[in-house]
Amino acid sequence: MYEYRPPLRDYRFVLHEVLKLQEETGIAGYAELTPDFTGSVLEEAGRIAREVLQPLNAVGDAQGCRLGEDGEVTTPEGFRAAYDMLREGGWPALECDPDYGGQGLPSVLGLAVGTLNSAANMAFMMYHGLTHSAYKALHAHGTEAQKRTYLPPLASGAWMGTMNLTEPQCGTDLGLITTRAEPGSEGAWSITGQKIWISSGEHDLAENIVHLVLARTPGAPAGTRGLSMFVVPKFLPDAEGRPGARNAVRCTGVERKMGLHGSATCAMAYDGATGWLVGEETKGLRNMFTMMNEARLLVGMQGLAVAQAASDQAVQFARERLQGRAVTGAQNPDGPADPIIVHADVRRMLLEQKAFTEGGTGFLSWVAMLNDAEHRHTDAAERERAADMVALLTPVVKGFLTDEGFRSATVAQQVLGGAGYVRDAGVEQLVRDVRIAMVYEGTTGVQALDLVGRKLGLKGGKPIMTFFDYVKGYIRDNEDDLHLAHQFLGPLKEASKDLQRAAMFFMQAGMKNPNAALAGAVDFLHLFGHVCMALVWSRMAKAASAALAEGTEDTAYYEAKLATGRFYMSRVLPATKLHLARIETGAEPVMDLPAASF
Amino acid sequence: MYEYRPPLRDYRFVLHEVLKLQEETGIAGYAELTPDFTGSVLEEAGRIAREVLQPLNAVGDAQGCRLGEDGEVTTPEGFRAAYDMLREGGWPALECDPDYGGQGLPSVLGLAVGTLNSAANMAFMMYHGLTHSAYKALHAHGTEAQKRTYLPPLASGAWMGTMNLTEPQCGTDLGLITTRAEPGSEGAWSITGQKIWISSGEHDLAENIVHLVLARTPGAPAGTRGLSMFVVPKFLPDAEGRPGARNAVRCTGVERKMGLHGSATCAMAYDGATGWLVGEETKGLRNMFTMMNEARLLVGMQGLAVAQAASDQAVQFARERLQGRAVTGAQNPDGPADPIIVHADVRRMLLEQKAFTEGGTGFLSWVAMLNDAEHRHTDAAERERAADMVALLTPVVKGFLTDEGFRSATVAQQVLGGAGYVRDAGVEQLVRDVRIAMVYEGTTGVQALDLVGRKLGLKGGKPIMTFFDYVKGYIRDNEDDLHLAHQFLGPLKEASKDLQRAAMFFMQAGMKNPNAALAGAVDFLHLFGHVCMALVWSRMAKAASAALAEGTEDTAYYEAKLATGRFYMSRVLPATKLHLARIETGAEPVMDLPAASF
Repeated sequence: MYEYRPPLRDYRFVLHEVLKLQEETGIAGYAELTPDFTGSVLEEAGRIAREVLQPLNAVGDAQGCRLGEDGEVTTPEGFRAAYDMLREGGWPALECDPDYGGQGLPSVLGLAVGTLNSAANMAFMMYHGLTHSAYKALHAHGTEAQKRTYLPPLASGAWMGTMNLTEPQCGTDLGLITTRAEPGSEGAWSITGQKIWISSGEHDLAENIVHLVLARTPGAPAGTRGLSMFVVPKFLPDAEGRPGARNAVRCTGVERKMGLHGSATCAMAYDGATGWLVGEETKGLRNMFTMMNEARLLVGMQGLAVAQAASDQAVQFARERLQGRAVTGAQNPDGPADPIIVHADVRRMLLEQKAFTEGGTGFLSWVAMLNDAEHRHTDAAERERAADMVALLTPVVKGFLTDEGFRSATVAQQVLGGAGYVRDAGVEQLVRDVRIAMVYEGTTGVQALDLVGRKLGLKGGKPIMTFFDYVKGYIRDNEDDLHLAHQFLGPLKEASKDLQRAAMFFMQAGMKNPNAALAGAVDFLHLFGHVCMALVWSRMAKAASAALAEGTEDTAYYEAKLATGRFYMSRVLPATKLHLARIETGAEPVMDLPAASF
Repeated sequence: MYEYRPPLRDYRFVLHEVLKLQEETGIAGYAELTPDFTGSVLEEAGRIAREVLQPLNAVGDAQGCRLGEDGEVTTPEGFRAAYDMLREGGWPALECDPDYGGQGLPSVLGLAVGTLNSAANMAFMMYHGLTHSAYKALHAHGTEAQKRTYLPPLASGAWMGTMNLTEPQCGTDLGLITTRAEPGSEGAWSITGQKIWISSGEHDLAENIVHLVLARTPGAPAGTRGLSMFVVPKFLPDAEGRPGARNAVRCTGVERKMGLHGSATCAMAYDGATGWLVGEETKGLRNMFTMMNEARLLVGMQGLAVAQAASDQAVQFARERLQGRAVTGAQNPDGPADPIIVHADVRRMLLEQKAFTEGGTGFLSWVAMLNDAEHRHTDAAERERAADMVALLTPVVKGFLTDEGFRSATVAQQVLGGAGYVRDAGVEQLVRDVRIAMVYEGTTGVQALDLVGRKLGLKGGKPIMTFFDYVKGYIRDNEDDLHLAHQFLGPLKEASKDLQRAAMFFMQAGMKNPNAALAGAVDFLHLFGHVCMALVWSRMAKAASAALAEGTEDTAYYEAKLATGRFYMSRVLPATKLHLARIETGAEPVMDLPAASF
C-alpha cells in the first residue's frame, strides 16, 4: 500500500541551503525562519498530509460531493473531521494578518505547507485555497468594518470563502458577465444572476460561506470596466457578527468532473441576494486581479504538488515491481526478476519526474520568496524589483508548473503500466485531478497571453530586463567554478540566449502583426519556464557542490542532486531550441488556414 | 450537442489520391478497391459510428460493466443491440478468410473502418478487436479441425475471443507466467491459473467466448520458452460445433479503470478448465507474437481514432464558443464576442491536432497497405520487402500514434477549457479512454525496446536501410518540384538525417554499452514517428498540389491540406532535433543515479 512521503529533506535544502532564507533579513519575518522552525512546521504539515489527508484522497474521489434536495452539499466522509483538525491546529491562519487573527507567516512557508497538503489531497485543499483567495480580496479592498466582520472567521477557518466570476456564457471573457447588482437599503445591494464552476460554492465544512461576486451595477459600462465586486455571505452576519438569516443564494447543481470529485464545483443562483460592495464601484475586475497573482501561484503549486505525489509513488513502485532483467546482467539474481528501476527507460521516466519536481520546488519557493519581498521587504526599491519579477514570473509558474505537472503525473502513471490505469493504485486519480490546473485561474493560453501581451512590455520591458540581468549576473559571479560552469552555467547561458532571441523576435515581428507573437506565446512560456528551471538547477548544483566540498555525512543526497541536475541540463533543457524554432515561424503557419477549412 | 463527423473526404484523399490503392495491382484484392467501393463501405461504417456507436459512448462510460453473483458480466445498455446490428451487417467478417466464412477484404480498408468505429466508441470496439486477434491466432496456428470449429463463428461474430497473457506477477515479463496445463484425456489439456486484465474476458454479447491462454506444460523450461498456447472456450463445442457444456473458467472480477468503462477488463480463474493446444508445445509465445504486429497496429489505430474524435469536437466547439475579440479586429462584430477559433493560440492547438490526425491517417493507411503487401502481394520479393517495413514500423505506429494520440486528445480538452473538464461534453472521457493505449499490447517503452533492441538490427539492418532508401528515393524523384522541395522535402531530408545520425549513435555507443541506446529508445521511436509523418505529409502535399494544378472544384480542401502540411513541417517536425540531442547524451544521465537515490 502506497504511503505518501513528504519531501522534507528537499525543503530544508531549498529553503536553507539554496535560498538561505534566514540571510534575507530585509524581508520582515525571514530572520525567524530558522531550519528548526521551518523544519518543525513542515514536519507537522507532512504528518497531517500523510496520516490524515492522503487516506481521504481516494474516498473523496469515490464518493464525490452530493447535492441534497434542500440545496445543501455534503462533502465526502471524513472531510469535515479532517477540516476540523486543521482548523483546531490553526493552519488556515498561517499566512493571515495578525491584526485579524492571523499568524502572519511568509508566503514561502505557506506555499511549502500547501504543497505537502495538496500533494496528499488536492481536492480537499481546494476549500482552503478559495477561502484564502477570498480572504486576500477582502483584506486588500474591504472597508475596516468589512474586515472586522469577515477576516477573523475566515482566518480561523470557521467561515470559508469563494470567488464567483464564471457564467455560462463567459469563462475567459469576463466582459460578458450579466449578473446584476441593484442598490438596496442601508448601503446593501441586491444581486441576481447565475454563476457556474464555483469551487466550494456550497458544502458542509464551515458555519458560513462568504461569496465574492462580480456583478454589473445599473448604468455601468459594458465589458469588464462595468464590473463591481460584492461580498455575499450565505448567512447574513447578525449584530454580533454571527451567521444570521439565510441569504437568497443557493447551489443549483454540482458538476460531474473528470477528477477533483472531493471538491464541490457548484452552479450558484443569486436571486436578489443581499450583498455589499467591496472596493469602488466598476473596479471589481481590477480588484479581483490584485490577488490573481497569488491565486495563480497557488494553482502552479497544485501542478507541482500532484506531480510530486505521483513521482513519489512511481519510485516506490519501480523499486518493488519485478519484471525482466537488467540488460547488463541480473541485479536481483535471487529473485524471479529485477526491480524495474534497473531498466534505462524506467529510469528515464523517473528522472524526468524527479528533475521536474525537485527543480519545480526550487522554482516555486524562489518565486514565493520574491512574493514575500514584494510585500514585506523593508526597502522600497527591493519591493519594486520583486514586484516586477513576480508579475513577470507568475504566468510562467502557473502555465509551466501545471502543464509539466500534468505531463509528469502521466509519466508516473506510465511507470506503473497497467496498475497506473486501474483505480486501486491511485495514480490515475492524480492525473485526473491535476488536469484542471491547466484550465482554471486562466488556461495556459491565457497565461501565455498575459506573459507575452502584457508582462513583456510592462514598464517598457523593465521586468524582463531585470530577469535577464539577474541570470547574467548569476553566471558572471559563478563562472570561476569550472565544474559548475561546464555542466550548468554553459547550458543556462545558451537557454537564456534562446529566450532573449525569442523576446527579440516578438518585439520585431509582433510590431507588424500581433499574431506573430501570439502564435508562439505558449512556446515562449515554456521556453521561459525551462530557463527558470535551469537557473534554479544551477543554484541547487552550486549549493550541493558546496556541501560536498565542505564535507557532509549526506554525500548520497548531494550527489543525487548533482546527477539529477545534470539530467535536467542535458536531456530536458534542449527543449528551448524547439520552442525557439516554433516561435520564429511567426504567424503564418497558425493564421493561414481559413476558419472554415479546419 | 456534439455529433461525430467521420472524415470520409480524408479517406478518399489518402486511399485514392495519395496511396492510389487501385494502381497497386500486385496486391490481391486491391484492384477492386475503387473509390466507389471504399467510399460506400466507409460511408456506411461512418453512419453506424455516428448514429449507433457514438451515442452509446457516454452510456458505456457512465454504466460500465457489472459482474453478477453468477459470474456473468453485463455490458452497458444498448451494447448488445448495437453488436447484433454490426453482426447482422457482416462487419466482424470484413477481414476474415473467405474459406472460413469471411469477406477477405484487405487490412487497409479494415483499419479505416476500425478507425471510424473506434473514434465513435473505443470501448465498444474492444470486443471486436480482441475477437479478431484470437481469430488471427487460430487462423495462423490452429489445426484444420480447430479452424473449422472456431473460425466461422468468430467471423460471423456469434462467438467472440480473448487473449490471456497477463498474470498478477507479470505483464511485460511473460517469462514469469505460472498458469499450468496438464495433459488430460483425448488430447485435451487441463488449464489452471489466474489471469488478469483480460479484455472482454466475460460479457453478454456473444453465444460463446473463445479464450486463447498462455500456460506452462509439465517439464517445460522456465521463462518464455516454456509457454504453450491453448484454446479454452467458455462453452465446450458439442459434436455439431454448438456451445455445449460450461467450462471451468470464470470471471472473478471486473477492473475499475480510469476509462474504457464499457470494455469489460476481467480477472479470470482457470480451475482445471478444458483446453486444446494450438500450435506446437513450448512455441506459445512465438505463436502469440505472429499476430502481435497486427494487434499493435490496431492499438496505434485507437490512438489515432480517439484523437480524431476529440479534434473533431474541438473544432466544432471553437467555431461556436464566443469569447474575446480577434487581436486584429472583431470578426463577428454583430455578436457579443468572436468565436475562439480567431485566436492564434486556439488555432495553434487545433492545427496541432489536425496535423497529427490527418498525417496519422496517412501514416496508418500506408502501413496497413504494407501489411497487405506482406500477406497478399503476388511477388515474393515485394512480400519480403513489405514484411521488413511492417516489422520495423509497427512499434513506431503503436508507440507514436498512442503517445501523440493521447497528447492530441488532451489538447482538444484544453480547447474546450472548463467544458473539457466536465463530463457532459465528453472530451474528458476520450482522454481517459485513450490513455490505456500507451500501455496495453506493450507500453511505449516496450515498443521502443523492440524497435531499438530488435528491429534496428534485424537481418543485419536491412529493414532500416530499406526505409532510408525509400525516403531518399522519394526525395530524389520529387526534388524537381521546387515548391514541394522547399517546403516539404528539405525538412524531410533534414529530419531523416537526424534519424540516421541517431541510428549511427546507437550502433557505435550501443556496442560498448547497451544502455547508451536504450536510454534514448523512446526518443528514437518519436524521432522515427516524425520522419514517417514528414514523409506522409510530403506525399499528401504532392497529391494536393497535383489536384490543384489539374484544376478542381475542391480548392479549399487541397489548400487546407497544404497549409496543414506546412504547419507540420515548420512547427512540429523540428522536434527531431530535440530527440537527437537527448539520444546523443547516451547512458550516463539516465544510469548515473544509484537506485537508492531516486
